[in-house]
Amino acid sequence: MINGVRIKLKVACWLVARIFHVLGLLLIVLAGVEVIPLLADLAVGNPDWMVFASAALLTLFLGMSLLLATANRSHRLTIREAYLLTALLWVMLPLFGAIPFYFSAQNIGITDAVFESVSGLTTTGSTVLTGLESFPPGLLLWRSMLQWTGGIGIIVMGVAILPLLRVGGMQLMKTESSDTSDKVLPRAKEIATGIGATYVGLTLICAIAYGLGGMTAFDAVNHAMTTIATGGFSTHDQSFGYFDNPSLPWIAILFMISGALPFTLYLKSIGRDPLVVFKNGQVRFFLGFCFFMVFVLTVWAWRTTDLTPFNAFAQSAFNVISIISTTGFTTTDYTLWGGASVVFLILTFSGGCSGSTAGSIKMFRYQLMWSFLKSQLNRLIHPHGVFPVTYDGHEVSSDIVLSVTAFLGLYLVTWFALSVALSISGLDFQTSVSAAATALTNVGPGLGPVIGPSGTFGPLPAIDKWLLAGGMLLGRLELFTLFVFITPRFWRDL
Amino acid sequence: MINGVRIKLKVACWLVARIFHVLGLLLIVLAGVEVIPLLADLAVGNPDWMVFASAALLTLFLGMSLLLATANRSHRLTIREAYLLTALLWVMLPLFGAIPFYFSAQNIGITDAVFESVSGLTTTGSTVLTGLESFPPGLLLWRSMLQWTGGIGIIVMGVAILPLLRVGGMQLMKTESSDTSDKVLPRAKEIATGIGATYVGLTLICAIAYGLGGMTAFDAVNHAMTTIATGGFSTHDQSFGYFDNPSLPWIAILFMISGALPFTLYLKSIGRDPLVVFKNGQVRFFLGFCFFMVFVLTVWAWRTTDLTPFNAFAQSAFNVISIISTTGFTTTDYTLWGGASVVFLILTFSGGCSGSTAGSIKMFRYQLMWSFLKSQLNRLIHPHGVFPVTYDGHEVSSDIVLSVTAFLGLYLVTWFALSVALSISGLDFQTSVSAAATALTNVGPGLGPVIGPSGTFGPLPAIDKWLLAGGMLLGRLELFTLFVFITPRFWRDL
Repeated sequence: MINGVRIKLKVACWLVARIFHVLGLLLIVLAGVEVIPLLADLAVGNPDWMVFASAALLTLFLGMSLLLATANRSHRLTIREAYLLTALLWVMLPLFGAIPFYFSAQNIGITDAVFESVSGLTTTGSTVLTGLESFPPGLLLWRSMLQWTGGIGIIVMGVAILPLLRVGGMQLMKTESSDTSDKVLPRAKEIATGIGATYVGLTLICAIAYGLGGMTAFDAVNHAMTTIATGGFSTHDQSFGYFDNPSLPWIAILFMISGALPFTLYLKSIGRDPLVVFKNGQVRFFLGFCFFMVFVLTVWAWRTTDLTPFNAFAQSAFNVISIISTTGFTTTDYTLWGGASVVFLILTFSGGCSGSTAGSIKMFRYQLMWSFLKSQLNRLIHPHGVFPVTYDGHEVSSDIVLSVTAFLGLYLVTWFALSVALSISGLDFQTSVSAAATALTNVGPGLGPVIGPSGTFGPLPAIDKWLLAGGMLLGRLELFTLFVFITPRFWRDL
Repeated sequence: MINGVRIKLKVACWLVARIFHVLGLLLIVLAGVEVIPLLADLAVGNPDWMVFASAALLTLFLGMSLLLATANRSHRLTIREAYLLTALLWVMLPLFGAIPFYFSAQNIGITDAVFESVSGLTTTGSTVLTGLESFPPGLLLWRSMLQWTGGIGIIVMGVAILPLLRVGGMQLMKTESSDTSDKVLPRAKEIATGIGATYVGLTLICAIAYGLGGMTAFDAVNHAMTTIATGGFSTHDQSFGYFDNPSLPWIAILFMISGALPFTLYLKSIGRDPLVVFKNGQVRFFLGFCFFMVFVLTVWAWRTTDLTPFNAFAQSAFNVISIISTTGFTTTDYTLWGGASVVFLILTFSGGCSGSTAGSIKMFRYQLMWSFLKSQLNRLIHPHGVFPVTYDGHEVSSDIVLSVTAFLGLYLVTWFALSVALSISGLDFQTSVSAAATALTNVGPGLGPVIGPSGTFGPLPAIDKWLLAGGMLLGRLELFTLFVFITPRFWRDL
């Protein structure tokens, strides 16, 4: 038995090495992609093009290194090496991503550059920049592309790496993507290509839809990239509130939802039943939750503001789904709907489905916890009864339940600790608590006059920006991938 | 095996019946005790004495009923009957306790009367009353006595009932109080008497100390009762801020801590090693946590206010220990210490030790969760290693770990739900979130200008007072004891 598990694990580690190989390739592609903002800036004669040229070279260098490090196909990464590489990648990449901001002509400091880059790659979408309309196109494209790259990186990590590292109950997702062990590689390659194609395809469709909806080509491409990535960066200070056309928010709703669904399901639906997506338990739960919360907030907005019922519905639909899907676009300051701040803070913690670009806690964990709480309540009444915890109709081992509860516990502790750290620098209660939440969950906007839907993170002290950037990375890597490094055991007999 | 468990369970249920028998006796004693405020009001010629007379008769009636219902020594309560009786007792008692408030000459409405009574019996200490100095002595005594009675009720429930109902990991405490199964009854009686004597003894010593510290006899008795019960009702609007004598807060600190320690440990220390209390893992953890947080908040208060270092220490020590022990006395508005609100909100969730009068989450759950998180982190690095979760040096079954995590999860959900419910009525973010927290954890003061350390719950809308009273009961009964009633299974084949 133990031997069988070990062999599986070795296969797993070898697979991780393959994945980093693929990521190395992706980086080289990214370096190539950096030519796009370079050309955009060259076209309008902005000297920022040189910045992108150097950034592209650096990215190319990192990609080549990764490729070489994993070139030996028989080399197997240990679990610890897998953790280190994952963490390193997510800490290094934002630093590379910050270069164009820092060296641009926009006078962005090192703190703001790194914050914006982390917020981009983790698809959080909190911004420290204002006056976006006056920015050169290259830098705006770069912001959107950071989110877009981050989005695909997150899907790959959620589908392939985290389940193998057994982080936060993600091992539950293992069966979905790698159920047949005899032909892992062909399937992995197939899945990676399929996911990539779906991602590009959805982005293109979204961009065309935005264009037809009345956006300029530039806005359409930028917003398509940040919508599918559930990121939330916009090319306008007012976010989606800038656009007049009433069809645009509905297009955004559709594609924010698309970005928050499990990408592996799209592959399953191709050539088979296109409705297979809606037969998935997590997707149903997610959509049901979205409908329910949109309904609740529609009533809320209608009762507490002078919006018409339809406008209340439209505003509620857009902003609720933007927060649940962890996108973070806004059209209005919903914190002015009497008392709704608490609800929006709680929605911050929902998140989309696993294997999507969405952050936060995610639906499958809530489904699991719901089944777990029911089983616990029933056991109180019938101490000798057997009440298994189930997910999507299958019994779930107590190992996975424990893993998910540990994740939730650590999530809470991290949120509290981050809130305290922020309040030490003098932020008020609502700002500290909501900034910590929105960073950890990779949503974007916080609450209150400073970091709320109509504010930015710009005015915060530098130390808080670094703390929040750390929070974004922690949340994005599902906490444990970074917290393993603080255990003495990790560094023992290395 | 199963049979063995069943027999143990039958013994357990029979024990629960015995406990309710004892509680019936306690109620009759309580009815007798109600003669005290009656006499106090008679002495100053306040007509409220008639109110106490009728309340005493009603309480006597309930006590006699319980006594008769459990008179048959061979009758065994089923688990469900045990839940029902526990819940009924805690819902009925506050209604009895509200009678004197409602019928008094102080013009207290039904909502406020019930809120004050629930806040008293659950030892929360949130108040809706102002102008306490002008109140008749009978009613002030009644408030303190509600807390004092609630306090001993909670210890009995925590030591004897909840471990048997296996609520929220309390089964972990079973071994402490009932490790020798061959002579359960003599031990139970002995323990009950011992705890009662300790409780009365500590209250007397505390009252004497307060008297020596400069309080009037009346204030000393009232504050002694609410200190040992970690309740926090005061006879003055300014709470402990009313008293000038610098030794009084230190006396309060000592006895708030005494009330938050496991009362069974006091028994173990009598006649044996008096220091056995400090050898207990939970007590050490609790004291260590208190010291650490007092230190942190001392530095905080010193840096953000113009307090001298010693005054910062004194204010920090009193208010931090008041919140951690879930007492809720205040000497100053600590929310004015720049950004400290978040810390005090988090401290609300700490709680004292199990088997004490303290509410909230309590230390043993944090110790268990700490060990659990460590084991989970280690398992991520060594998937085949065995990393048991331990408590006080002993391995803990995954059943108990799951039970505690379910408790924490439900705690969070209840907190969030209560916050949303409060914000619907229009309370602002900070008030909703902190009112829900302080009710659920039975601490007392919230945050913000209305319900903060220098405010009261009086101005809140009536619906919110009922919601908060519900929250106090939920927290006091460790959630599951009430949530069990919403499972369909509870009502099946009854």
